[in-house]
Amino acid sequence: MNTIREYIASYLTELKIKAPLVHCITNYVTVNDVANALLAIGASPIMADDINETEEITAISSALVINIGTLNQRTIESMILSGKKANALGIPVVFDPVGAGASKLRNDTTMEILEQVKIAVLRGNLSEASFVAGLEVSTKGVDSSEADEINDSIAVAKAVAKDFHCVAAVTGATDIISDGERVVNVSNGCKTLSKVTGTGCMATALVGAFAGAGTDNFTAAVGGVASMGIAGEIAFSKAGNTAMGSFHIAIIDALSNLNGEIISRMAKLYEE
Amino acid sequence: MNTIREYIASYLTELKIKAPLVHCITNYVTVNDVANALLAIGASPIMADDINETEEITAISSALVINIGTLNQRTIESMILSGKKANALGIPVVFDPVGAGASKLRNDTTMEILEQVKIAVLRGNLSEASFVAGLEVSTKGVDSSEADEINDSIAVAKAVAKDFHCVAAVTGATDIISDGERVVNVSNGCKTLSKVTGTGCMATALVGAFAGAGTDNFTAAVGGVASMGIAGEIAFSKAGNTAMGSFHIAIIDALSNLNGEIISRMAKLYEE
Amino acid sequence: MNTIREYIASYLTELKIKAPLVHCITNYVTVNDVANALLAIGASPIMADDINETEEITAISSALVINIGTLNQRTIESMILSGKKANALGIPVVFDPVGAGASKLRNDTTMEILEQVKIAVLRGNLSEASFVAGLEVSTKGVDSSEADEINDSIAVAKAVAKDFHCVAAVTGATDIISDGERVVNVSNGCKTLSKVTGTGCMATALVGAFAGAGTDNFTAAVGGVASMGIAGEIAFSKAGNTAMGSFHIAIIDALSNLNGEIISRMAKLYEE
Repeated sequence: MNTIREYIASYLTELKIKAPLVHCITNYVTVNDVANALLAIGASPIMADDINETEEITAISSALVINIGTLNQRTIESMILSGKKANALGIPVVFDPVGAGASKLRNDTTMEILEQVKIAVLRGNLSEASFVAGLEVSTKGVDSSEADEINDSIAVAKAVAKDFHCVAAVTGATDIISDGERVVNVSNGCKTLSKVTGTGCMATALVGAFAGAGTDNFTAAVGGVASMGIAGEIAFSKAGNTAMGSFHIAIIDALSNLNGEIISRMAKLYEE
Repeated sequence: MNTIREYIASYLTELKIKAPLVHCITNYVTVNDVANALLAIGASPIMADDINETEEITAISSALVINIGTLNQRTIESMILSGKKANALGIPVVFDPVGAGASKLRNDTTMEILEQVKIAVLRGNLSEASFVAGLEVSTKGVDSSEADEINDSIAVAKAVAKDFHCVAAVTGATDIISDGERVVNVSNGCKTLSKVTGTGCMATALVGAFAGAGTDNFTAAVGGVASMGIAGEIAFSKAGNTAMGSFHIAIIDALSNLNGEIISRMAKLYEE
Repeated sequence: MNTIREYIASYLTELKIKAPLVHCITNYVTVNDVANALLAIGASPIMADDINETEEITAISSALVINIGTLNQRTIESMILSGKKANALGIPVVFDPVGAGASKLRNDTTMEILEQVKIAVLRGNLSEASFVAGLEVSTKGVDSSEADEINDSIAVAKAVAKDFHCVAAVTGATDIISDGERVVNVSNGCKTLSKVTGTGCMATALVGAFAGAGTDNFTAAVGGVASMGIAGEIAFSKAGNTAMGSFHIAIIDALSNLNGEIISRMAKLYEE
């Protein structure tokens, strides 16, 4: 996996030069972290969800990130309109189906977005991705259910990718990225990442940053997910797992300090 | 007060094992801190406020936290529907009437929620609780008014508890918890807590975490309020009162490090 | 510029005594930082945007801050109603036209607010202020466009101030404050401030804090902008520019530690 690691390192340099504008229609729980993660890695965030501007903002952006963490009727409509606009203009759409499996609204919205919008990368935890793959899920809430861990994340990622002609990034103890054929296993990160809200949302946004900088979808997915994992490892080495405020801050510190050399040295990638 | 201190310590252990899902319909100012405080103490947060999913999310949760800090017509309806659903299913509802006394909308919504939803624990500052108790208040905004400090917080807590058949937690220089008969005085915390937004909201959410883990309402109220106070004391010892960003982070650090031993050692409880 | 520096130092003392209530109708991306920046400098924040309470909350406040960062139909109406209420009661209105130039909705809303509400201070980056001044802008998103840097920020600030009979604060590498005649150049701050979301929003809110404490609009604008710049310099000296999480926290630390002596010593003001 020297190749993809080096690609990511080089795309990160390009990302920092291009500073792509990333339009996020996202949840209000983690939106500040999403914006700061994008700035930290070198992208430029813009949050806009009113139906009277959302397509126009998408049109000037380099990537669109859709996150249904606190979806509502008003923003669902904006997500779909912006997604279609992005498709029409060839702008990559990264989708985070937060809590898919946990309510009919989240399930229906997830499927509606997948039917109406061509997704470049779908990033979710195993419960969310299992739902998208059509498996029964036992998720409670927005965190992955342990009961769903019986699902094979490689099979789930492949199924999602094939069903929706996208790259699927299924994150968890190990992160799996697949385009339906290729499978890359990212074993960066640490369990402590699940003790801060928003680390999944940030990973999704980072995928958007790479994609917005012109990285191919597969490499963008690996790059975003690996960046988040590496930031988590660095944060853990500084703050441990009993100081979650400090760990949270250390994640952003690590992202803002990330560069090609660190990626090359720390990324743990394995092609199945 | 050895007994209640030991109960809380033991319930905290249980909370960490059960990791109860806590559904929050809350304000967008402090929502990130609320989610991180819940994760830090060992619970699992979910924020959902759309009318098309809110009851369903309540139904899979172990507690519901309603906070009117940035209420609007859309979310008020969701609060009431979710509250009724929680009542029907026997799920405890914790209510934070942020800014009650400051506007007709907040006053009317507070009373409507109290009329339509059976509350397990109401947590508010002295201005808010005084309004709920039917006293005249001079609150300006969402912080407690000094003019309202003439009200006797023990009398206010008792009145709220009796009037609405709930546990009342009135927080301030000293925190008072009452079920109408028993009164526990929690003298943890520090003045610096009022210099960071969201410490009240976090305390309310922590009460929800304890209640969601099966703690009885009275002990849950004391436990949540004492946990926040202890976290404030620890944060103060690390960051003082002229570094409010660091203090803010140190609160989350302390919550994530909290355990039964710290509760037993630091909780300052006094039964009136 | 000894005079204005000393005025600011003395007004800051007054601000801390008065603790003015500052009503913010603002965006959900940076709202937590805005609230904490206001608390840190000694003001009291309240966020309320529902049409059924927004005028009432404005009426009990000492300043109104309008920020269109994540505007939507619901909040636009509240911004205008609250602005008119503030005008009727003589309460200063500080306006941050976030992303003006980037979408028709932002452009139209900016102009509608400027037509219907008498603004005390408008604070924006050079792209936003250039749009308000009627110049062509090439802004992409909410960050100032480099292409717009050809505009002369002094001329832009003067034009905005004259056109809308307000004080204009145009922030960037150097911050320019003008009432149409006088021009003060504030050269505090550092480039790193642009790598954290919300530093512009916080500066706007700080202007609101000064104005709410009774500071004249011109001095309030210089005071708010200089306070943010000084906090940025102090944060940079602590965290550098490759640890953006720590830098973010250090900004709030510095604001909470700010006093007249630090203002007098560090403010870099130059009257053109």
